[in-house]
Amino acid sequence: MKNVKLTLEYDGSNYHGWQSQNNSLAVQDVVYKAVFKLTGENVTINGSSRTDAGVHAYGLCANFITNSSIPPERFSFAMNSVLPSDIVVVKSEEVSLDFHARFNSKGKKYRYMIYNSTFPSALLRERACHEVRNLDESKMQEAAMKFLGTHDFSSFMAAGSVVKSPVRTIHSVEVTRDGNIINFEVLGNGFLYNMVRIMAGTLIEVGYGRIKVAEVENIILSKDRKRAGKTAPAHGLYLVKVYY
Amino acid sequence: MKNVKLTLEYDGSNYHGWQSQNNSLAVQDVVYKAVFKLTGENVTINGSSRTDAGVHAYGLCANFITNSSIPPERFSFAMNSVLPSDIVVVKSEEVSLDFHARFNSKGKKYRYMIYNSTFPSALLRERACHEVRNLDESKMQEAAMKFLGTHDFSSFMAAGSVVKSPVRTIHSVEVTRDGNIINFEVLGNGFLYNMVRIMAGTLIEVGYGRIKVAEVENIILSKDRKRAGKTAPAHGLYLVKVYY
Repeated sequence: MKNVKLTLEYDGSNYHGWQSQNNSLAVQDVVYKAVFKLTGENVTINGSSRTDAGVHAYGLCANFITNSSIPPERFSFAMNSVLPSDIVVVKSEEVSLDFHARFNSKGKKYRYMIYNSTFPSALLRERACHEVRNLDESKMQEAAMKFLGTHDFSSFMAAGSVVKSPVRTIHSVEVTRDGNIINFEVLGNGFLYNMVRIMAGTLIEVGYGRIKVAEVENIILSKDRKRAGKTAPAHGLYLVKVYY
Repeated sequence: MKNVKLTLEYDGSNYHGWQSQNNSLAVQDVVYKAVFKLTGENVTINGSSRTDAGVHAYGLCANFITNSSIPPERFSFAMNSVLPSDIVVVKSEEVSLDFHARFNSKGKKYRYMIYNSTFPSALLRERACHEVRNLDESKMQEAAMKFLGTHDFSSFMAAGSVVKSPVRTIHSVEVTRDGNIINFEVLGNGFLYNMVRIMAGTLIEVGYGRIKVAEVENIILSKDRKRAGKTAPAHGLYLVKVYY
């Protein structure tokens, strides 16, 4: 009996997110089927994160317990031979039997990509959020710095979510521009439902000057979802890395 | 009567290249239909380049003569409202009546993108050519320098092509690596059929050490297509810019 950890890259465009649901295809279903095809086993695939429909990943992690004779580090090769081309196992490895991709996660890094130009991009149409008017990325960086540290992020949680605690710690933030592309990267110990997309939506408002940098602190303190910006579209979001 | 120049970005994945053909959808057809929808005119769309099926563009140029009352610089907005999302008019402008997107071109810049990693990329699967083993990008850059200047590029032209002259001038080349991504950029006064893809295929052989850097000069001099590398796949190629 072995515990296999997978690191997955996927294009979320064709899936209803990571988590299996009724009547829609999730990345988890496809990964499960690939393992079943190779091992004949009905394994439980534990994912590190429940990404929404359309969200992409460079490094979502998952794990499953197997009795298969396939060496853990060879599962990547075996699975990539049966997976569709929009889901790739970047790495597979053996981990201790008590490892759980979700519960053992110590931190996550997300990226939100904005394509800032008069017209949308044909090549990035499913990879970045399109914003028409010129965004001030230096103001966005200043505002992002306000997220740093440990806060009650209730203002940045989808309305109606139920959590034990809305307190999270943000370790680093970075807003960079390369031509028409603005990337917001954020690393934290964990994220509430829609938290990065609401952060991105708020930074977009700051970039347009509709929310002042100084106001972001008050938005956090208010614990009021209505004070923050809109939830930015899913297709601009990437789960970059999970830390253990 | 006005001559309108368009600068087009497109994702080539769903098209049989730029040029209209029987029984397959080309980018030119879609652009033609958009102009027809807006003006009711049967215009001729002149394209700067005949990109192959799967090839992408950031800045293919085209032009057409119209009697429409739509101001030339507003065609971009009008056309983007009727074009599918994988074709975008980045810019539209009035040019002199004798301007022809193909014949007036003074130079073109292409990019060839390679994803160099054990496994293919889910997110770049239709955007870059996948090469499994580690490529030596510094050797590739050295080899690319051999293309500089004016040469008979018969060795880098699809077999059976008919041209007035196989002589072209390459002004600049650059091979850069960013993590798993290797980009080859080349700017020249013009390119033979499949020339950039054969250059890329040859550089890949150099990167693997199967063709020596010094050998590239002899390959050019031989004027023998069989001496150069394979034609690298279309989906790694981008027409970046056309110069006038």
